[in-house]
Amino acid sequence: MKHFLSVKDMTAKEIIDLLDMAESFREEGVQITKQVFAANLFFEPSTRTKTSFIVAEKKLGIESLEFDMETSSMKKGESLYDTAKTFEAIGANILVVRHEADDWDEELRDKISIPVVSGGAGKRNHPTQSLLDADTIYQEFGTIKNINIVIAGDIRHSRVAKSNAEMLTKLGANVYFACAPDFQDKSLDYPYITMDEAVEIGDAVMLLRIQHERHDEFSSSTLNYHNDYGLTLEREKKMKDHAIILHPGPVNRGVEIESSLVECDRSRIFKQMNNGVYVRMAVLTTQLLKWGIIDEHHIEKRNDTYGRQSARNIRFAN
Amino acid sequence: MKHFLSVKDMTAKEIIDLLDMAESFREEGVQITKQVFAANLFFEPSTRTKTSFIVAEKKLGIESLEFDMETSSMKKGESLYDTAKTFEAIGANILVVRHEADDWDEELRDKISIPVVSGGAGKRNHPTQSLLDADTIYQEFGTIKNINIVIAGDIRHSRVAKSNAEMLTKLGANVYFACAPDFQDKSLDYPYITMDEAVEIGDAVMLLRIQHERHDEFSSSTLNYHNDYGLTLEREKKMKDHAIILHPGPVNRGVEIESSLVECDRSRIFKQMNNGVYVRMAVLTTQLLKWGIIDEHHIEKRNDTYGRQSARNIRFAN
Amino acid sequence: MKHFLSVKDMTAKEIIDLLDMAESFREEGVQITKQVFAANLFFEPSTRTKTSFIVAEKKLGIESLEFDMETSSMKKGESLYDTAKTFEAIGANILVVRHEADDWDEELRDKISIPVVSGGAGKRNHPTQSLLDADTIYQEFGTIKNINIVIAGDIRHSRVAKSNAEMLTKLGANVYFACAPDFQDKSLDYPYITMDEAVEIGDAVMLLRIQHERHDEFSSSTLNYHNDYGLTLEREKKMKDHAIILHPGPVNRGVEIESSLVECDRSRIFKQMNNGVYVRMAVLTTQLLKWGIIDEHHIEKRNDTYGRQSARNIRFAN
Repeated sequence: MKHFLSVKDMTAKEIIDLLDMAESFREEGVQITKQVFAANLFFEPSTRTKTSFIVAEKKLGIESLEFDMETSSMKKGESLYDTAKTFEAIGANILVVRHEADDWDEELRDKISIPVVSGGAGKRNHPTQSLLDADTIYQEFGTIKNINIVIAGDIRHSRVAKSNAEMLTKLGANVYFACAPDFQDKSLDYPYITMDEAVEIGDAVMLLRIQHERHDEFSSSTLNYHNDYGLTLEREKKMKDHAIILHPGPVNRGVEIESSLVECDRSRIFKQMNNGVYVRMAVLTTQLLKWGIIDEHHIEKRNDTYGRQSARNIRFAN
Repeated sequence: MKHFLSVKDMTAKEIIDLLDMAESFREEGVQITKQVFAANLFFEPSTRTKTSFIVAEKKLGIESLEFDMETSSMKKGESLYDTAKTFEAIGANILVVRHEADDWDEELRDKISIPVVSGGAGKRNHPTQSLLDADTIYQEFGTIKNINIVIAGDIRHSRVAKSNAEMLTKLGANVYFACAPDFQDKSLDYPYITMDEAVEIGDAVMLLRIQHERHDEFSSSTLNYHNDYGLTLEREKKMKDHAIILHPGPVNRGVEIESSLVECDRSRIFKQMNNGVYVRMAVLTTQLLKWGIIDEHHIEKRNDTYGRQSARNIRFAN
Repeated sequence: MKHFLSVKDMTAKEIIDLLDMAESFREEGVQITKQVFAANLFFEPSTRTKTSFIVAEKKLGIESLEFDMETSSMKKGESLYDTAKTFEAIGANILVVRHEADDWDEELRDKISIPVVSGGAGKRNHPTQSLLDADTIYQEFGTIKNINIVIAGDIRHSRVAKSNAEMLTKLGANVYFACAPDFQDKSLDYPYITMDEAVEIGDAVMLLRIQHERHDEFSSSTLNYHNDYGLTLEREKKMKDHAIILHPGPVNRGVEIESSLVECDRSRIFKQMNNGVYVRMAVLTTQLLKWGIIDEHHIEKRNDTYGRQSARNIRFAN
């Protein structure tokens, strides 16, 4: 059975099916009518990915288990594998894992008997982020084929750049990179263009986060960076009428993007976060189905605004 | 639409209505029959306020989202505003925020499209604490009009003193302050009395917490403080028969109050904490109604001791 | 009314009844049909015990309240007693407490009016761990009478060794200790044997965790320890055919046990963790019943795989 660790092994059809499922969950609502436990094992700081998974779980009716690095047995030297096995033994039916190691999944891949969903792996990949990016473009244009997508920023250190570029290419998009020379990754074979070219050619300009915490020397030249490689007010004006701005967050306002553009008309930055919840609901549901933890009978389409159970009603009904 | 940020803008009637709603929730129970997400964004340490909000949410049937300062993107330099917007995008329907900045609300006030409830703002105010204090007095005396209330302790650094004094005055109480000279706040226009006068005049003596963590030099003279300005065993004996003791907690036993008095007959200290849950249920419900997130149909009066849904019953009912 | 603080005061019959209840919960499922709040106050790092209690609560339908040492009022100097009283006031119906003090329960014993369940006390005892160990042996052999059980490892610093030895003896087992001379506890009156004797005599070999964090000087001689006092590959081969290996976790692979044995056929290490959930469900349920917080009407036997409430069904049923 396959874990959900990368978009690499997914076919274009599988990806589009998953985005369609996400959209149906948004429109019709969904509830899993079986008690399922998801353990969210985040070994790296995260607000949006972790909370997004938790909201996805709660919207599905899944019980969320959290894990606190600071007060856990990791302090006693326990490995990721033993932590994961422990959660499995205690009753988790599915694991969501983020870890700073690029290859954390190798510790778990063949040794754990419940599905593992990646919440991000080191600098390498972040498959649910890739899917929510694709979802936002798909939602906007009805397709991903032939859409010009520029990924701009710290390509080399980004876990989103590589996996997104591959996935979007597989879905038929034309992918370009735009970044400072230091941030180029020569091992990736996509055309590099300037930010001035990017805003003219791009249907979607996908900005990456400058990872201040990994580039201390960097902060002094922030303004120069913004002018040379950021999305400035001037550049935004040159974007195509229908073009959109994406950013995985958290945003460094005034660095990779002018602060006032974060919520401008063509920004889909907060929309992306919202889409992330539904994409993750689809990923979780798909994995639970594939692994036989739930079956179709346990999935009930139901509007988000559901009337909850009334004790009184149930007693009357009896 | 108005956020819940201060008791200042509430009329006396609005306050009393809210306290009546809190009391009805305690007696009859209540359950919101729609899936609602509350994000509890506590940027300062808190046990009682945060837990009280979470219990209030769970009693209402609201999903609680928590936020861990230590492992969040705040570490990556994200602002309160961007954190709040993120939780909104991910699906929060209401935010509960505590922050050390006196004016944190200005960052959010006009820019967020879901209701914000204050869980405390710097040294300035703490509106749900004020309401639970009022609730406890109202519960005891059936009114707040003409009740003599002494607020005693570190007036100058307390976020409760100022907002409470204003609110209780608006509700018709006679408010006095009692404190060491260093703790006086000359900008507030209430009569200052001694602790010996306080216990003779007060129907309610509301002690404040000496904030050890803000007064390091202070600890050496703890005993003197207790004798000069604290509620000693001797002073408690001089209180009126019906007079009550209030304290927002956490208590410094032996400093502002003699340890054995914390649970004496006239202490309402733990009762206050209990009242806080129902007051917060009323605040959350009121805000959700005002903002149209729920309507009256989603509020079901139901005893706390509710029989939960039975899968079997539901299947039989079908 | 009695708190759940130790297995010492339990009779053999009470223990076996509780294990039978745990087993019935596993087989038939159970749901408490009243809203009950459990506060999990863990003042020491813990993954497995804390998560196990939380899963137990969620399987029972109990609301879990968590407590974060790092951001709590403990930082403001609040005592365990005041923290516990606060959770009681705010609405907790039952407390689960772990604390590093051997005698933390004395602070609470007669002063708190809701049941307290121990999640571990200093070096002294850890009653739910003892019960899950007993459960695993009982499950394996159908009895505990006349079973040879060797407890091996750091007897002196273990909170499990002493309470387990007492309990298992009460249940009719023959208990032996095996450990390095430094780890012996002369105050305990059980036969000390070598690890080579242990694997020959034991029906169950219960390894304890070497507490690296308490023995810094120790790590240099890890290999020697493993060879002299650990469960090596060679020793495992000499175990009786039916003999099982137990370990409370977290495991130091290669120290007290050879890494590959952690998941060998005769290992019940992860099974123990799984049993812990059901044992804790039984403990919580028993305490809630004893204290009159729920009655038998609130306990509904229901398979774990329960169909949840359907809003639509309920509306039709009406």
